[in-house]
Amino acid sequence: MAEQRVPIITLTTDFGTRDHYVSSLKAAILSVTTQVQIVDVTHEVPAHDIGAAAYMIRSAYAAFPPRTTHLVVVDPGVGTSRRPIILSADNHYFVGPDNGVFTLIYECDVPARVFQITAEHYMSPSPSPTFHGRDIFAPVAAHVSRGLGIENFGDPVEDPVKIDLPRPKVTQEGLVRATVIFVDRFGNVVTNVTRTALEALMQKLGRTQIRGGVGGAAITETRATYAEGPGGTPFFLFNSSDYLEVAAHEARASDLLELKPGDAVEIHLV
Amino acid sequence: MAEQRVPIITLTTDFGTRDHYVSSLKAAILSVTTQVQIVDVTHEVPAHDIGAAAYMIRSAYAAFPPRTTHLVVVDPGVGTSRRPIILSADNHYFVGPDNGVFTLIYECDVPARVFQITAEHYMSPSPSPTFHGRDIFAPVAAHVSRGLGIENFGDPVEDPVKIDLPRPKVTQEGLVRATVIFVDRFGNVVTNVTRTALEALMQKLGRTQIRGGVGGAAITETRATYAEGPGGTPFFLFNSSDYLEVAAHEARASDLLELKPGDAVEIHLV
Amino acid sequence: MAEQRVPIITLTTDFGTRDHYVSSLKAAILSVTTQVQIVDVTHEVPAHDIGAAAYMIRSAYAAFPPRTTHLVVVDPGVGTSRRPIILSADNHYFVGPDNGVFTLIYECDVPARVFQITAEHYMSPSPSPTFHGRDIFAPVAAHVSRGLGIENFGDPVEDPVKIDLPRPKVTQEGLVRATVIFVDRFGNVVTNVTRTALEALMQKLGRTQIRGGVGGAAITETRATYAEGPGGTPFFLFNSSDYLEVAAHEARASDLLELKPGDAVEIHLV
Repeated sequence: MAEQRVPIITLTTDFGTRDHYVSSLKAAILSVTTQVQIVDVTHEVPAHDIGAAAYMIRSAYAAFPPRTTHLVVVDPGVGTSRRPIILSADNHYFVGPDNGVFTLIYECDVPARVFQITAEHYMSPSPSPTFHGRDIFAPVAAHVSRGLGIENFGDPVEDPVKIDLPRPKVTQEGLVRATVIFVDRFGNVVTNVTRTALEALMQKLGRTQIRGGVGGAAITETRATYAEGPGGTPFFLFNSSDYLEVAAHEARASDLLELKPGDAVEIHLV
Repeated sequence: MAEQRVPIITLTTDFGTRDHYVSSLKAAILSVTTQVQIVDVTHEVPAHDIGAAAYMIRSAYAAFPPRTTHLVVVDPGVGTSRRPIILSADNHYFVGPDNGVFTLIYECDVPARVFQITAEHYMSPSPSPTFHGRDIFAPVAAHVSRGLGIENFGDPVEDPVKIDLPRPKVTQEGLVRATVIFVDRFGNVVTNVTRTALEALMQKLGRTQIRGGVGGAAITETRATYAEGPGGTPFFLFNSSDYLEVAAHEARASDLLELKPGDAVEIHLV
Repeated sequence: MAEQRVPIITLTTDFGTRDHYVSSLKAAILSVTTQVQIVDVTHEVPAHDIGAAAYMIRSAYAAFPPRTTHLVVVDPGVGTSRRPIILSADNHYFVGPDNGVFTLIYECDVPARVFQITAEHYMSPSPSPTFHGRDIFAPVAAHVSRGLGIENFGDPVEDPVKIDLPRPKVTQEGLVRATVIFVDRFGNVVTNVTRTALEALMQKLGRTQIRGGVGGAAITETRATYAEGPGGTPFFLFNSSDYLEVAAHEARASDLLELKPGDAVEIHLV
C-alpha cells in the first residue's frame, strides 16, 4: 500500500476564528499548491503574545512528521523593519516573523539554519504592509513544503531575535523555582520545567522525589495518569509533551490553586 | 469523472481548540497516512462528559459516507485499566476508550463488532500514559481508514461498557417524559425522543398530534421548518437528525423556556 | 513540479463550532467527492445575521484562487419559499440561499450569473426541510467544484434578493458618513468605505488627507501599518481587504472609541 506523501503545513496564530483571516492564510497556501494537508495548531494565542506563541509551537511541532512546515503568525510588528524569516531545525521547517516566536526552537540540539525572506517572486505581488501572514509567510511556506530549499529565499541570518522567557531557576540546592507557561482547557497547569532537565538534576543531586509549593499549599504526590490522582488534591504529572504540570483528578488544578500563566511554582527535590 | 476515494476520519473530543492537543491527534494520523480527509465534528464536548460525547457521535456519524472512521476521545480514565477499543457498526468504524462513549452506537440495528486494541505495532512507540488519543487511537484510526481489518488490533470484546443515559419514558398511556440532551447554538432544545419512536407510539395508540409541557408552559404546535413557527412562541419540530426538538422562530427556545441538558419535557400524544 | 489542482470549497455559516452541523456540511461534500480542499472561512457569523454574512463573504472570497466554490449558509428562512441559488461572479462560484447574503457579490464589476437550484438529482435524496445546507447547498457545491456548469442546476434568476446595507454617504462636499461593519479580534474597527472609493473622491475634490470623528474624539493620523501608529491613539489604516479601518497600536480601537457594528464614523477629507 505504498502511497505518496502529501506535504503538511501547520498554522499557529493569534487571529481567532471569528474573522476570515485564517481562511486568507489557507487561500494563499492553496494558491501555490493544493496538494497539501493544512493543520490548525491553534488560532487562540493571546493577541500579540509572542511568548505564548513561542511555547505553543515548541509544544506542538514535534508530534508532526519530519519535514513538516510550521507557519507562526503572531506579528505585532508587521510591516516594520522586523525581518520575515524561514528556518530549519530538528528536521522541521518554520516560517514567520523574526520577533522571538522561535526562541525555543533555537534551543533544539541541532542548531537552526535561519534565512531572511527577501525573494519577492515567492511572495504575493504587492504584499499588504498589514498582512505578511497572507502575502509573504503563507506562500513561502507553500513553496518550502513542495521541496524548495530554504536557502533560496534570502541571505542567512546569524542573529535571529530571541526573547527573554522565564527559565526554571535552581535557587538553592534542590529547590527549583518554576513558572507557569500555560493552563490548558482542563485546568492543568503546565510549568516550564521538562522531565529531562528535572531528572538530570535529581540524578546529580541524588534526590528521588518531587515536592511542590504554591502559595501556602503543598503538592506531595506525582502520578503517571490523571485518573490515578487523589480526588480533589493537586498532584504533579509529566505531560505528553514532557513538561511538568500540576493536575487534579476530576477538578481544575488551576482553580484549586488559583494559578495562571506567569505565576511561580516551587519544586523541592527530596 | 471516476476518481479515487480518499479515506475520511472524523474527530470528536473535549479538547477545545485553544490548546494544541487536536493538532497532535492530526499529526499522529498524518504520520501514518497523508492520503486522508480529517474532519472535526466538535472539540467542545464538555470536559470529561461521556454522555454528551455519546449523543454527539450518535448525531454526527450517519451524515458521513460508509466506511468513515470516527475517532472519539473523551477519556477521563486515560492510562488506567479502561480498554482502548475499535468497533464497526452500521458500516462505519469507531475508535476510542471503552468508557461508554459508544453506548448509542451499540443500539444500531446491526450489532457492533468490538475489538480491544492491544497490537502495539499499530500504536506510537512508548505511548504516553496521559494521551492515548495521540499515541493509540489516532494511529489506529489511520490504519483502519487505509483498509486494515479491525480484527487485527486485538481480541473481541463481548461486554463493551454502556452507560446509563436518560431514556424517554412512557409514564402513562400517551404521556412521554423526554429529557433534553443538548441545546444547540441557536437555542434549539434537542430531546432524546426520535421521530421513529414517537410515530410508532402514535400509530399504536391512534393519536395524531403532539402537545408538550415544560414547567408551566404549554407547547401546542408542531412545524416542519423554523421559519414557519409562530413568532416568539416555542413549537415542536423534528430536526435534521430526526430528534424531536423544541424551537422558536427568531428567538431562542432554550431562553424562553429556561431549558438546559438534563431537564424534562413532557409530551402528550392526543 | 506540475501537479493536479484539487478543487477548493469554502464554508461561511452561523453554525458555531460546538454543534456537529459544520461536520454535516463537510460530510455531504465528501459524499460527492473526496478530492477537495474544504476551508472554513468562519462559522461565527452572528446567528441569522444576513448582513454580517454578506460582508464576511465579500471580505473573504478574493484571497482564494479563481474557480473556488463558496458555500454560504446563513439561512433563517430554510424550508420556506426562499430560493436556493448558485451563481458565478468574478470567476468564483457561490452557493446558498437567495436571501441577500450575496448582495455585495452582485456589485462586482462583471455581472453575476444566477441560477435557481431545482435539479433534485444533485441534492441528497429527501432533503430535510430544516437543513438545506447539508442536503442541497453542500452537494451542489461539490458538483460545481468538480466542474459541472452552474446552468445545469435550474433556471436563471433575474431578480436575486438584495438587502439594504448601510452605504457610505457623502453628506456634504468632503464629508463622508461611514458605518462600522465589523470589529475584528484585535479591536480593529472596519468601516464600509473602500480605499478605491475614498481615493477616487479625494482626487475628484482635490483633497489629500483624511480626518475622522467619532463621538467627540478626533482621528488625525493615517498609517500604513499597525505598529507605526501612535501609542494609545486611534488612527486610520487601509486594511488588507482594502477597507478603511480605525486601529490603535497595542490597544483595541473599538474599546478606546466604544465602537461596534452599525455605529457611525465621520470622515473629513481635507
